Amino acid sequence: MSDLWNFEKIPYVGTADPKQGLGFHYYQPDKVVAGKKMSEWCRFAIAYWHTFNQRLVDPFGDGTAQRPYDKYSDPMELALAKVDYSFEFYQKLGAEFFCFHDRDIAPEGGTLRETNKNLDKVVDRIEARQKETGIKLLWNTCNLFTNPRFQAGAATSPFADIYAYAGGQLKHSLEIAKRLGAENYVFWGGREGYETLWNTDLKREQDHMAAFFHAAVDYAKEIGLDAQFLIEPKPKEPTTHQYDFDAATTIAFLKTYDLDKDFKLNLEGNHANLAGHSYQHEIRVARSAGLLGSLDANQGDKLLGWDLDEFPSDLYETTSVMWEILAEGGIGAKGGLNFDAKPRRSSYTERDLFAAHVVGMDSFAAGLLVAAKLHEDGVIEDLLKERYGSFDSGIGAQVEAGKASLAELEEYALDKKQSELISANEPGNLEAIKATINNYIIKALAEA
Amino acid sequence: MSDLWNFEKIPYVGTADPKQGLGFHYYQPDKVVAGKKMSEWCRFAIAYWHTFNQRLVDPFGDGTAQRPYDKYSDPMELALAKVDYSFEFYQKLGAEFFCFHDRDIAPEGGTLRETNKNLDKVVDRIEARQKETGIKLLWNTCNLFTNPRFQAGAATSPFADIYAYAGGQLKHSLEIAKRLGAENYVFWGGREGYETLWNTDLKREQDHMAAFFHAAVDYAKEIGLDAQFLIEPKPKEPTTHQYDFDAATTIAFLKTYDLDKDFKLNLEGNHANLAGHSYQHEIRVARSAGLLGSLDANQGDKLLGWDLDEFPSDLYETTSVMWEILAEGGIGAKGGLNFDAKPRRSSYTERDLFAAHVVGMDSFAAGLLVAAKLHEDGVIEDLLKERYGSFDSGIGAQVEAGKASLAELEEYALDKKQSELISANEPGNLEAIKATINNYIIKALAEA
Amino acid sequence: MSDLWNFEKIPYVGTADPKQGLGFHYYQPDKVVAGKKMSEWCRFAIAYWHTFNQRLVDPFGDGTAQRPYDKYSDPMELALAKVDYSFEFYQKLGAEFFCFHDRDIAPEGGTLRETNKNLDKVVDRIEARQKETGIKLLWNTCNLFTNPRFQAGAATSPFADIYAYAGGQLKHSLEIAKRLGAENYVFWGGREGYETLWNTDLKREQDHMAAFFHAAVDYAKEIGLDAQFLIEPKPKEPTTHQYDFDAATTIAFLKTYDLDKDFKLNLEGNHANLAGHSYQHEIRVARSAGLLGSLDANQGDKLLGWDLDEFPSDLYETTSVMWEILAEGGIGAKGGLNFDAKPRRSSYTERDLFAAHVVGMDSFAAGLLVAAKLHEDGVIEDLLKERYGSFDSGIGAQVEAGKASLAELEEYALDKKQSELISANEPGNLEAIKATINNYIIKALAEA
Amino acid sequence: MSDLWNFEKIPYVGTADPKQGLGFHYYQPDKVVAGKKMSEWCRFAIAYWHTFNQRLVDPFGDGTAQRPYDKYSDPMELALAKVDYSFEFYQKLGAEFFCFHDRDIAPEGGTLRETNKNLDKVVDRIEARQKETGIKLLWNTCNLFTNPRFQAGAATSPFADIYAYAGGQLKHSLEIAKRLGAENYVFWGGREGYETLWNTDLKREQDHMAAFFHAAVDYAKEIGLDAQFLIEPKPKEPTTHQYDFDAATTIAFLKTYDLDKDFKLNLEGNHANLAGHSYQHEIRVARSAGLLGSLDANQGDKLLGWDLDEFPSDLYETTSVMWEILAEGGIGAKGGLNFDAKPRRSSYTERDLFAAHVVGMDSFAAGLLVAAKLHEDGVIEDLLKERYGSFDSGIGAQVEAGKASLAELEEYALDKKQSELISANEPGNLEAIKATINNYIIKALAEA
Repeated sequence: MSDLWNFEKIPYVGTADPKQGLGFHYYQPDKVVAGKKMSEWCRFAIAYWHTFNQRLVDPFGDGTAQRPYDKYSDPMELALAKVDYSFEFYQKLGAEFFCFHDRDIAPEGGTLRETNKNLDKVVDRIEARQKETGIKLLWNTCNLFTNPRFQAGAATSPFADIYAYAGGQLKHSLEIAKRLGAENYVFWGGREGYETLWNTDLKREQDHMAAFFHAAVDYAKEIGLDAQFLIEPKPKEPTTHQYDFDAATTIAFLKTYDLDKDFKLNLEGNHANLAGHSYQHEIRVARSAGLLGSLDANQGDKLLGWDLDEFPSDLYETTSVMWEILAEGGIGAKGGLNFDAKPRRSSYTERDLFAAHVVGMDSFAAGLLVAAKLHEDGVIEDLLKERYGSFDSGIGAQVEAGKASLAELEEYALDKKQSELISANEPGNLEAIKATINNYIIKALAEA
Repeated sequence: MSDLWNFEKIPYVGTADPKQGLGFHYYQPDKVVAGKKMSEWCRFAIAYWHTFNQRLVDPFGDGTAQRPYDKYSDPMELALAKVDYSFEFYQKLGAEFFCFHDRDIAPEGGTLRETNKNLDKVVDRIEARQKETGIKLLWNTCNLFTNPRFQAGAATSPFADIYAYAGGQLKHSLEIAKRLGAENYVFWGGREGYETLWNTDLKREQDHMAAFFHAAVDYAKEIGLDAQFLIEPKPKEPTTHQYDFDAATTIAFLKTYDLDKDFKLNLEGNHANLAGHSYQHEIRVARSAGLLGSLDANQGDKLLGWDLDEFPSDLYETTSVMWEILAEGGIGAKGGLNFDAKPRRSSYTERDLFAAHVVGMDSFAAGLLVAAKLHEDGVIEDLLKERYGSFDSGIGAQVEAGKASLAELEEYALDKKQSELISANEPGNLEAIKATINNYIIKALAEA
Repeated sequence: MSDLWNFEKIPYVGTADPKQGLGFHYYQPDKVVAGKKMSEWCRFAIAYWHTFNQRLVDPFGDGTAQRPYDKYSDPMELALAKVDYSFEFYQKLGAEFFCFHDRDIAPEGGTLRETNKNLDKVVDRIEARQKETGIKLLWNTCNLFTNPRFQAGAATSPFADIYAYAGGQLKHSLEIAKRLGAENYVFWGGREGYETLWNTDLKREQDHMAAFFHAAVDYAKEIGLDAQFLIEPKPKEPTTHQYDFDAATTIAFLKTYDLDKDFKLNLEGNHANLAGHSYQHEIRVARSAGLLGSLDANQGDKLLGWDLDEFPSDLYETTSVMWEILAEGGIGAKGGLNFDAKPRRSSYTERDLFAAHVVGMDSFAAGLLVAAKLHEDGVIEDLLKERYGSFDSGIGAQVEAGKASLAELEEYALDKKQSELISANEPGNLEAIKATINNYIIKALAEA
Repeated sequence: MSDLWNFEKIPYVGTADPKQGLGFHYYQPDKVVAGKKMSEWCRFAIAYWHTFNQRLVDPFGDGTAQRPYDKYSDPMELALAKVDYSFEFYQKLGAEFFCFHDRDIAPEGGTLRETNKNLDKVVDRIEARQKETGIKLLWNTCNLFTNPRFQAGAATSPFADIYAYAGGQLKHSLEIAKRLGAENYVFWGGREGYETLWNTDLKREQDHMAAFFHAAVDYAKEIGLDAQFLIEPKPKEPTTHQYDFDAATTIAFLKTYDLDKDFKLNLEGNHANLAGHSYQHEIRVARSAGLLGSLDANQGDKLLGWDLDEFPSDLYETTSVMWEILAEGGIGAKGGLNFDAKPRRSSYTERDLFAAHVVGMDSFAAGLLVAAKLHEDGVIEDLLKERYGSFDSGIGAQVEAGKASLAELEEYALDKKQSELISANEPGNLEAIKATINNYIIKALAEA
C-alpha cells in the first residue's frame, strides 16, 4: 500500500474510549457473528461518485472538499490518478467492494465513441488495481441523468434520439460490468419521471422504459454477463415524480412488464424516507416479494424533504436493517452495503472523509451485533410465532390453506360475542417492544 | 318528495351572481357536454357515513352537527328514519347514487347474527326507497375498522377469530350488494397495515388479505353478484402503514396474488396527497394499468398531514380529474364521483350540509366544462402527439416494436454530437402549459 | 396503598434481562446523578386525560381501553372514583406529580355554574388525596377546545359570548390551581387559530387572545396564585394553523403583547415535529429566550403528519432533552416531564397502561444518565469552547462587545486570501459527533 | 432598445386566444385598477441571479440554459455584457425594477479588495443603464452563502475571521445600494442556521447576527442610505434549520434584539410552504405586525420538500397575495414583486425565459383583477364585519378595551345555556367561501 492518502490503515480500537477518533469501535472484519464473518454480512462498498468526486456542493453553495488529487488539472490524468487513490482508500478503510457510474470515472468526449475511449483507458487501470488488490466491483451503473441531453429523461425521454443514445451508453456500461466482474448492475432512473402530467404520456414512457430493460437483459445474455440486475427506487427529486417511486411501485412495474424474473431491488434509506417509508419497510417489502438485491447505506433527516445522503449513524435504523438481513440470510444473494453517502460540507478535509466512512461502517457493524443478539434470543421470532399462532391450526390453518369460504367463516363467527372477539386480540405491546430494542442495543454493544 | 329537510330542491341559478348561495352555478344534470349529459359524466354519489352519520368531531372536539333526525333516540328508529332523510336529500340535491358501509345504516347487536337482523330491516327500507325514487347504489362496503375487535386488522388481523368474523361480515354485505343492485363493491383496508414492523409478519398478513379477497370473489360468483370489486388505497392513518398505500402498491399486490382480473381501484384525492401524489397522478396510474374503477371526490390540504375529507373546490384539481375521465371515456365502466367529504366543524347546520355538496358538485361540473374545452381544442392531445412524434417512425418506432437492440441503438448514437442531442430535446414549456390551463379555466367557465 | 389496580408498585429490576417486563431498568428515583436525585431532575407527571380518560379512540375507530373503573356508570360517581384510581396509579408508578384539564375530572352541567359545582366536588377529593399522599399538581389547565361551543375558538372566537364563557371558565380553573397548589398553569390553544384566512381577522383575534392572557395575569395576582403561566405551542391540528405555532412564534406573540415577563413555554416533542423541528430545537430556543417552563414528554413518528402522543422510547431524543435540562440546571424553575402520551390502541389492558409509563420513565432516566456522562466529560462544552474560541479575543471579542463597525471589519478582512478564510473554518465533524453520542449512550447505559 | 435578445417587446394580446404565446393576457401596466396603475400595484422586479445567471442546474444535473451571452468567456467581459442584456430584458418585458446579490454581477478576485474592484466596474455600467432607462433597483443584497468560506455561516459563523469578512463585504454592498438608489436592502441568511445542535451555540450565534444587523443599521445611517432593510425568512435548505425560519420567528428575533424599528420582511411563497405555511399566511402575519416589506414572487409544489422557485401560475395564490396587498394599500411602502423564480430545466431556450416571466406577471395581474373585484364588492370585508360584530359593542367592546376582568366575564357567562352558546357560533361557511373565490376568479377574469 502506497501513501497517496495521509492516513494509515484504520485500526480497530474497541469501545474503551467513547470519543470518536479514526478507529473502529465495533467493526472487525474477521469476527464471526451469527455464523459468518462481519465482512461477509456487511460487504461494504465505497461509492465512487460521493467519496471521490463529490465536491460537497449544495444548491446554494460551491464545493468545499479538499482532496489530495486536486493538484491534477488534466481531466484524463486526474481520472487515472483517482483510480489509484480510490484503491488505496478501499484498502486503508478495509472495504472490499466499490461501485461507480460510467461518468464518475472518465470525462465525456464530443461523441459517445470518444467518451467510450476515455472510459476504456480508465477501466484498464481499474482492472489492473482489482487484480492487485482483490477488491471487487459490487456494481456499476450508467449515468443517464447528469448531462443536459437527459433533461427530459433517458429511457423515458420523449425524444427517440435520446433513448437511442442512452441505449448505446448502456451497452458499453454492460460490457464494462462484464470485464470487471460486477456482481450486480444497477439502474437508477433519476430522470425517468415527469415534471407535470400535462405534458407527459405516462404509459408510453413506461412502455419505453420496459423495452429498455428488456434490451439490457437480452444484451447481458448475449455477452454472458451474469451480474444481478437491480432497480433503485426513489420517489421524487430531481423530478416531481419518478416512476420507480418505491419498492412496491417498482414491483408493480416489473410484474406489469414481465421483468420480475430478471430484476431485483437496490434499496436506500434516504429514498425510503422521501417516499414516506422507513428503510426497514422497503427492505421487508422487497423480501416479501423475493426481490431483495442490494442496499445503499445512508440516512436522511426525516424532518427534511430532500436527499441528504448522510453517512449512517442511527443505531435504530442499522439494527432494523441488519435484523432483516440476518432473517434473510444475507443481502440478497450478491448484495452489499454501498455507502451512497457524503460528508457534510463542513467536513471538508481528508480526515473527515475517512472519519465519515468509519462512522458508517461502525454503525452497521453495531447494528449487526444487536440484530444477532435479537435473533440469538429469538426475541422477534418468538413474538411472531405466538402472535400469529391462531393461524397454525383450526379455522386459521384453513384460511392459510385457501379453503375457508365466506360461508364457513360466517358459520364460525355468527354467534361469537363481542367480549370473546375483543379478547381474541392479544395486546400488541408496542411500547414494551420499543424498550426491548433499546435494551438489546445497550446489552449487545456493552458486550462488544 | 316530502319535507323532512327544510330546503327545496336545489335549483340551477347560473353564474350571474358570484356570491355563493344554495344554487348550482355550473351543474345542469341534463346539459350535454362532450356527447354525454353532465349527470352521466359525473354520476355523483352521496356518502352515507359523512353526510348522514358524521357528527363533525375531530380528535380534539365533540361533534357540532345539527341534523333534523337528532330527535330520534332509539337506534333502530333512528336508523330507519335516516333512510327516509337520506333519499329525500339525494333527490333535493339531484344526486343519483349513494354509497354506504354496512355499519353506517344499522346498529350492531350482541353477535353477528343479531347485527345482520338489524341490518336487514334497514335494507328493506332502502330497497323500497330505491324502487320509489330510482336512485341507485354506486357501491356498498364492509366496515372492518371501527369496532375494537378490528384493532389489529380484519383480513390481516394476527388473530384467526377476527379474520373469520370479518369474513362472515363480508358475506352478508355482499348479499346486500346483490339485493340492492350495487354497481360496485369497495374494500378500504383502514386497519390492514401495521403500527410497527417489529411485531408484524407482513408477508403472512398479505397472504391472508389475498385469501380474503379470493373468498370474496368466489362468493360473488356463487350468488351471481356482478358488482365491480374495488380497492381504495390510502397510505397511512389510522395505521403507520397501510398495505394499500397507493394505486401502484395496490397494483403490485393484485398482480402478486393474481387478483388483477377481479379488482379495480377506487381513488381518492386526499388519500393521493397523503401518499405524496396528486389526485391526477393516481388516476393516471390506474388508467395506465386498465384498473380505474371509481372515484372518491374530496380534497385535502397539501400542507396538512392527515385526512381532511374536504368538499372539492379546487378547480385545478377538478379540471385535471375530469380531463382524465374524458380521456378515458368515463369513470371506468361503472364508477362515479362519491363525496367522501364532510363539512368543516363550523359548518354545522342543515344549510351548510346542502351548501357543501353544492360546492362539490359545482366544482366537478366546472372541471368537466374546462376539460371538455381542452379536449375539444385538442390542447393536450396535440402537444403529446408532437412531443412524442419521434417514436412514430424510424429508430423510435423500432423501439416501440420491441426490436431495437442495444447494439442497434449504439450504432445509431455513436457519433452524434452533444449539440444535436441537446437540440433533440424540444423545450417542455411547463410554464406556458400552466398558463394555458388557467386561460382555459377562465374561458370555458366564462362561457358557461 | 389500596388495590384498585391489579398491580404492585413497579420495582426497579436493573438491566440484567433485556426483555422488558413491568420493572424499571434505569429509573431509580433516589439515585443521585449530576448532583441531584433522578426524581428531582425528571419530576415525572401523569396526564389525567390520557392516562385515565383516553379510551384509545382514533378518527377511524372506537375506544379499545379496558379500565378497572369502567364499572361505574354515573358520571359523578365515576369522576370521584377515578380520583382514587389516579392517586393509586401515581404511587404504584412512583410519579410525584400529575396534570389535568378542568373537564378531565368532572362532567359538565347545563351551565357554567352547574359545571363548577361538579368540579368542586371532585377537587375536594383531589385535595384530600394530595394531602394523604404528598403528590403534587405540576399544572392544571382549562379545556377550551372540546365542547362544540368552542368550534371557532375560545379566546379567539369571533363571538363575544364564547370569549366571555371562556373567561368565566378560566377564572374557576385558576381558583382550583390556587387551591391545589399548582406549580404551573398551562394554556394550550387548540382552537386558537384558523381554518382559512378568508374568514379570519388574524390581528383582531390575537388582540383578543392577549387581552385574555392579561386578564388571567391580573386575576392570578388578585387571588395570590403564584403558579408559573405556560403556553404550549402546537402548529396545526385540529385547526389549519394555530397561533402558538412553535416556540419562536409564541415568543413573538409574548413580546408583541408585553406578556413575556408573565409567561414561559411548555414544550412537547410531537408538537415540535409537527412544526418541522426537533424536540431539542424547541427546548434550545426557549432556553435562549429564558422562557423554558416545562415539558410534555412524548414522541411522534416523523414520517406521520398528525399528533401520535406516543410514550417516549427514542434514546436519541431523551438524551438530547436531558442534556438541555442538565445544561439549564433543571426544567425551568418549576417544570416537570408530563406524559402527554397514550398507549397504542392494541395496548388496551391495564398492564399495558403501566408498561407504557414504565417505558417512558425509563427512557428519560436513561437519557439522563447519558446526558450526565456527556456533561461530566465536558464533551459538548469543550467542543463549543474550542469552536467559538475566536470570539473570545481580538476582532471576535470586539464583535461580542458590540463595537465592531463595518469599517473596522472591512479593514480587518480586506486583504485576507481565500485560503486563509477557508482554513478559518475548522471542520464541523458532524459524522464523528453523531458516533460520539452513540458511544456515550452505550457506555453510560452499560454502566448503569 | 437594441436587439441583444431575439425577441420584440412583449405585447398585450388580451384573452381571446386561450393558448399561451408570448403576450400578456392580463397585464397592462397603465390600466387603472382600484385607483392605481397595475404597474404601481405590482412593481415587478427581475432577479439577476435566476434570470441571467441560473444555468438551470439541479443536484443531479448540469445546466441546460442557452443564453445569448454564452459566447463571452472572459469573466469581466461577460459580467459587463450581461448588464446590457439585463436592461434590454427588463425593457422588453416591461419590468421597472431589478434585484441582485453582489456576487451575481461580478466575479470574485483573490481578496475582498480585488473583488470590490471588479464589482465597481460593473456597478458603473449598471448606473449608466439605470440613468438611460429609468429602471430602478428594488433591492440589492450580499451573497454570504455560496463561497466555501461561508460553509458554517457568515454573521453566525463560529469563526471570527469569517464574520469580519462578511461585515467587510456588507459594507461595500451597502455603498452600492446607496449609489444605485436601492429602495430596499435584503438579508437572506442561507447559512445562518445549523446542521446539528450538538455543535452549535444557538444563542451566541444569534447574538452575533444581531450585532451584524446593528452594525449595518449604523453604517446605513453613516452614509445616508435610506433603503428599507428587509429580512427574508426561509426555514431550512441549505441548512437543517435557518434562524429566520418564517415571519413569526423573524419577528421574535427582531423584537428580542431591538431591531424591529429598522427591519421589515421580504416574504416568498415557496419559503412559506417549506415552513408549513401558505404564502397568504406569511403576508398576513407580517401585516399584523406592521412589518410587511416586499415580496419574492414564486411558487412551490406543496407535495415536494425543497425550494423549487417556480414562476407563479396558481391563481388562488396570486389572488390571495394581491388581496392582502390591496387591503394593505401596497406592498409595504417601497416593496415590489421580485421574481425569485427560474424556468424548469427543460425550458432552456431564450424564448422560454421570456415566456416564464410572462406567465408570472400575468398570473399576478390576474390575481390583482380578482382581488380588486372582491374588494370592490366588499366580499371579505362584509363577512368579517358581520362575523366579528359581537365585539363592536357590549361585553365584546369591553374586551377590546382591555377592561373585561375574569370576574366580569364569569358573571356574564355563568348561567348561559349550552344551546345559547352553540348558537352564538354563526356558521363559518368555509365551503361556500371557497366557491365564492372560484366565482370571483371566473367573473373578474372573464370581464378582463
